Amino acid sequence: MKLYEKFADDIQRLIRQGVYRHGDRLPSIRQASQHHRLSVTTVLHAYVLLESRGWVESRPQSGYFVSLERHGGAGRAGELQPSTPLALSSSVDVSRLVLSTLRAIGTDDAVALGSPYPDPALFPFEKLNRYAYAAGRDRSPWNVTNALPPGDPRLVRQIVRRHLENGMPVDPGEVIVTVGATEAINLCLQAVARPGDTIAVESPTFYAMLHAIERMGMKAIEVATHPEHGIDVAALAAIMQSQPVAACMVMPNFQNPLGFQMPEERKRELVALSARAGMPIIENGVYNELYFGGTHPDTLKSYDRDGLVLHCASFSKSLTAAYRIGWALPGRYRDQVEKLKFLNTLATPLIPQLAIAEFLERGGYEHHLRRLRRAYAQQAQLMRAAVSRSFPEGTRLSSPAGGYVLWIELPPQVDAMRLYRLALDQGITIGPGYMFSISDSYRNFIRLNFSSPWSERIAQAVAAVGRLAAGG
Amino acid sequence: MKLYEKFADDIQRLIRQGVYRHGDRLPSIRQASQHHRLSVTTVLHAYVLLESRGWVESRPQSGYFVSLERHGGAGRAGELQPSTPLALSSSVDVSRLVLSTLRAIGTDDAVALGSPYPDPALFPFEKLNRYAYAAGRDRSPWNVTNALPPGDPRLVRQIVRRHLENGMPVDPGEVIVTVGATEAINLCLQAVARPGDTIAVESPTFYAMLHAIERMGMKAIEVATHPEHGIDVAALAAIMQSQPVAACMVMPNFQNPLGFQMPEERKRELVALSARAGMPIIENGVYNELYFGGTHPDTLKSYDRDGLVLHCASFSKSLTAAYRIGWALPGRYRDQVEKLKFLNTLATPLIPQLAIAEFLERGGYEHHLRRLRRAYAQQAQLMRAAVSRSFPEGTRLSSPAGGYVLWIELPPQVDAMRLYRLALDQGITIGPGYMFSISDSYRNFIRLNFSSPWSERIAQAVAAVGRLAAGG
Repeated sequence: MKLYEKFADDIQRLIRQGVYRHGDRLPSIRQASQHHRLSVTTVLHAYVLLESRGWVESRPQSGYFVSLERHGGAGRAGELQPSTPLALSSSVDVSRLVLSTLRAIGTDDAVALGSPYPDPALFPFEKLNRYAYAAGRDRSPWNVTNALPPGDPRLVRQIVRRHLENGMPVDPGEVIVTVGATEAINLCLQAVARPGDTIAVESPTFYAMLHAIERMGMKAIEVATHPEHGIDVAALAAIMQSQPVAACMVMPNFQNPLGFQMPEERKRELVALSARAGMPIIENGVYNELYFGGTHPDTLKSYDRDGLVLHCASFSKSLTAAYRIGWALPGRYRDQVEKLKFLNTLATPLIPQLAIAEFLERGGYEHHLRRLRRAYAQQAQLMRAAVSRSFPEGTRLSSPAGGYVLWIELPPQVDAMRLYRLALDQGITIGPGYMFSISDSYRNFIRLNFSSPWSERIAQAVAAVGRLAAGG
Repeated sequence: MKLYEKFADDIQRLIRQGVYRHGDRLPSIRQASQHHRLSVTTVLHAYVLLESRGWVESRPQSGYFVSLERHGGAGRAGELQPSTPLALSSSVDVSRLVLSTLRAIGTDDAVALGSPYPDPALFPFEKLNRYAYAAGRDRSPWNVTNALPPGDPRLVRQIVRRHLENGMPVDPGEVIVTVGATEAINLCLQAVARPGDTIAVESPTFYAMLHAIERMGMKAIEVATHPEHGIDVAALAAIMQSQPVAACMVMPNFQNPLGFQMPEERKRELVALSARAGMPIIENGVYNELYFGGTHPDTLKSYDRDGLVLHCASFSKSLTAAYRIGWALPGRYRDQVEKLKFLNTLATPLIPQLAIAEFLERGGYEHHLRRLRRAYAQQAQLMRAAVSRSFPEGTRLSSPAGGYVLWIELPPQVDAMRLYRLALDQGITIGPGYMFSISDSYRNFIRLNFSSPWSERIAQAVAAVGRLAAGG
């Protein structure tokens, strides 16, 4: 760990322990540098890191202040601990339960705190619909030949431009447009591993990763994961010493459900491990555009020199989930992934590709994203504060650095599945923890979605779940 | 073979031999019954069968007449012979060549005789586009939860209604909406067989079937197939005696590329074999709506009492290819297919589902199909006549009973790949035969698409391909 990371962690602990409270001004950079015998650059770097993690905020001419966001208002809810899963590979069979849970989210008029999807309220769906209509008036998108892999050249150009603006140069020839990131992840996994192979995942892990493993009849092994630093690279290396690991699937930025942003140094370490072992990494970057810090996070792929990182992304979390347009940047596996795309679904529908390309070409995307990031960062604060106020003693919270989900550890006696059913009876859905693991590790965890504009209805739903969790 | 089938084949041979010519009136039913010592019912049954195959047409109050359609105008081109593939199972790797061939079809302004897709000119794409726009103005389709498998209830209702109108009652709970028939076929195959298993297919077979086998790392075995009766059930049974066959994939109606409609009796035999052996059949029914005879063809599934027939279909050949909306009726494998759908692409986009449901609810589908069938039947005649006029001596033609492709056997010295490249140089694409087999059996075969409204440009393109094939 770098010196500035260590110093940032120290400050973070002080905030957690209540030494610094919401609104407190941190020592000035000069003061801190003198007190702790650190260079001015190190302190500055640590403060910037803390800001990117949402712990502090800078105010022009005034310095750095402890922000409400991570502090969580009432402050009753604590911070999560790193996970320590048993390093046993196991076959995967979680999809049936996940599907039935997701279905319940869509039924009736439930308050959809359990939804994995962004609330379309903040999305420019009317504009996209108009662009789709305009694209569909032309006859050529109805000619399926144009929709064959790799994807529409206009959309590919916009995807490449977007990656470039976000600091990651990409060869246009590498992009394969897919039916959502789901298909991208599936094809990438199929390109790098065989049925029966073992795939390393975070713990907790996004269930879509487990689904991809289940679909191919592969095995998963869960790796210890830090709630702020991400997958434990040393733990992964140790597992790879003891057994063959065909690939690793991670979400380094704003992981679902933990919400962390892996520090740059950890990303470099993970990519270095992959290069040493010749082990491909499937990087799920679907939340990358939804950062709360000042800048776009870096990616594993940007450190990859061997074509071993297969980057998967989509517009589903940041622009429109309905169109199911994703893409893969499969590195050295590009040709296999293109072939598998063709075999899997033949073509990705062209009209949605053209509507999204049109939206991006007109330059509205960054403006939309700025609004979305601001809203999500604020809603994260409000959701954390609401949970802190109403959930039982012993509850611990994630500190999402981006995205729109909060991960909550309930006191050990709370069964999240029972809580899920009780909440559903009251017209509220929550995401039960079992979906995020092949083991029983998260039976007292839940995931809450904060993508909807904050409202009294949501506040009351959170309070109601808190009361149910407290057994009241 | 039934008596009426034998009699129909006799008449067919007489037409082929020029004994009966285009426009000739066949003997009346009473006459034929007396001459051939057959019951009136048998003769009537044979004439109806010949009509469904497109050889004759009935004129009210006048009797049955030899139609131009099968007669093929100039009559120089002969009829195809049954295939006799070597019964060796083999791994499959055709997709790369197929993808590059299909791509060439879409480039520039080629005359797309090689296209597998229907020309959208005859499709109501403007109406669908308006319905999609209207559906997208409502916020609910933008909520992805509603798009989870099995599919939108409005669309499912219309699919079930349509099957019912076509004589096949279906349980609404069985329908799984997919991304085109491609995904349906993939999921059905994955539900019934494992990597390494052997799958029986027709010879020639539609390459999408081979792709599904390739995607799963399975093996294919080609079964002798009659150009008018379809897969040879006895030959399939013999193969199943000699080696395990995990499943069979067939297209019993208007097979791509042969265009046959399996006689009812053959369908029953095939389903009976499947039931005896407990072997699932994947039935590709994508062309079912495009019959040239008077009535919708029956399906394997309608004879299935054991849930062993997995029926796959789509709107891509009959309404819109651009939306990529298909479905599976997976019989006893319904739950596995639904789960695999969820794992494979999560959700099928809702807006296209709603647009198609709207179109069907308004009752415009049957009218559109009648127009389409009439056009395709006529274009089949024109294409057959054009080929007969300009292709070299020794050319043999399929007699499509539905669909929109013609299968052509060229004299043995013609290499279809060379012909493909020569035609491409002249801005014409054709479908080379190698795409339809894992063996080298069809190197002198091509497939031509007749879905475009007939024009001088198409006529000239067919003539040009004929000249190239003749080596001129």
